[in-house]
Amino acid sequence: MKKIESDLSRGIWSLPSFPIVLVTVGRNIMTAAAFHFYSFEPPSVMVGIIPDKYTNQLIHDTGEFGINIPTSEQIEIVRICGSVSGWDGVDKYALAGITLRKPTKINSFLIEECPVNLECQVVHTVDYPGSHQWFVGEIKAVHREEQYQRDQALMFWTREFRRVGEILEKTGAKS
Amino acid sequence: MKKIESDLSRGIWSLPSFPIVLVTVGRNIMTAAAFHFYSFEPPSVMVGIIPDKYTNQLIHDTGEFGINIPTSEQIEIVRICGSVSGWDGVDKYALAGITLRKPTKINSFLIEECPVNLECQVVHTVDYPGSHQWFVGEIKAVHREEQYQRDQALMFWTREFRRVGEILEKTGAKS
Repeated sequence: MKKIESDLSRGIWSLPSFPIVLVTVGRNIMTAAAFHFYSFEPPSVMVGIIPDKYTNQLIHDTGEFGINIPTSEQIEIVRICGSVSGWDGVDKYALAGITLRKPTKINSFLIEECPVNLECQVVHTVDYPGSHQWFVGEIKAVHREEQYQRDQALMFWTREFRRVGEILEKTGAKS
Repeated sequence: MKKIESDLSRGIWSLPSFPIVLVTVGRNIMTAAAFHFYSFEPPSVMVGIIPDKYTNQLIHDTGEFGINIPTSEQIEIVRICGSVSGWDGVDKYALAGITLRKPTKINSFLIEECPVNLECQVVHTVDYPGSHQWFVGEIKAVHREEQYQRDQALMFWTREFRRVGEILEKTGAKS
């Protein structure tokens, strides 16, 4: 039986699951499930950050961010980086016991342990108010473990960390 | 061994999986994996549509769209709606054998068989060029099967339909 919900936010909390990523700016890190591609060409992604977060200010200051894709075995890193605010001046690389990886096109560090790293330059900030502010970043460099399989990634939404689901069917079209 | 990719689009194709939805405008339907939430408050979502798609023009014309969340058992509906262009004047409801559900706040029909339907009013069009044009829609009504579990949803990315993955861990925080 289908019903009309009185609480419109149920529409948001009913969504299944999204990739969770670690966003690096300077040498700070935050976790974000508000992440998607923006454009195939030029290859671009977007990330949504709550305006009062430290990372939001850092992105405004630097005009760049790194996207680091963790594996399902790195929940602990994701949790640590998501539990402390950058405003507190904590070195999250030290706290989470992870390794700085040098970028090639931007100035923000990347996370060595994550199998995929994207170096992104902000090309647009979405100009419409909401709980999150979305930044579009053009991908300037891609670092990738040669053996990486997307099945290794970590998903998240509404209190649930999940694996990537099993393949039901392959199609001919790329997207 | 990590390497620097020469093809930057590998950064996009390496992403794991996203919810796939059916976007309804008027009585047309298209499939989209370019879909995410936009803001928790007010509850809003966004969808990215290639500019030359019929649905893109319909959204510009009407200022609204429906989001219909299919289950993993509805791949066939998703495939049919994704294989025909609305420019051809085909009635996709008839073609896919699905039922029109009446909206309550917008004028576009919804898909009865999908367990979750969101009625959305366009509040912003992202003004930055790319392969996709993103529309932000504020949720005006939510229809939801009372028994719906997010595990039933269908995921997609880069040629792979997938199930929602298994839960690894639950957290206290909503997002």
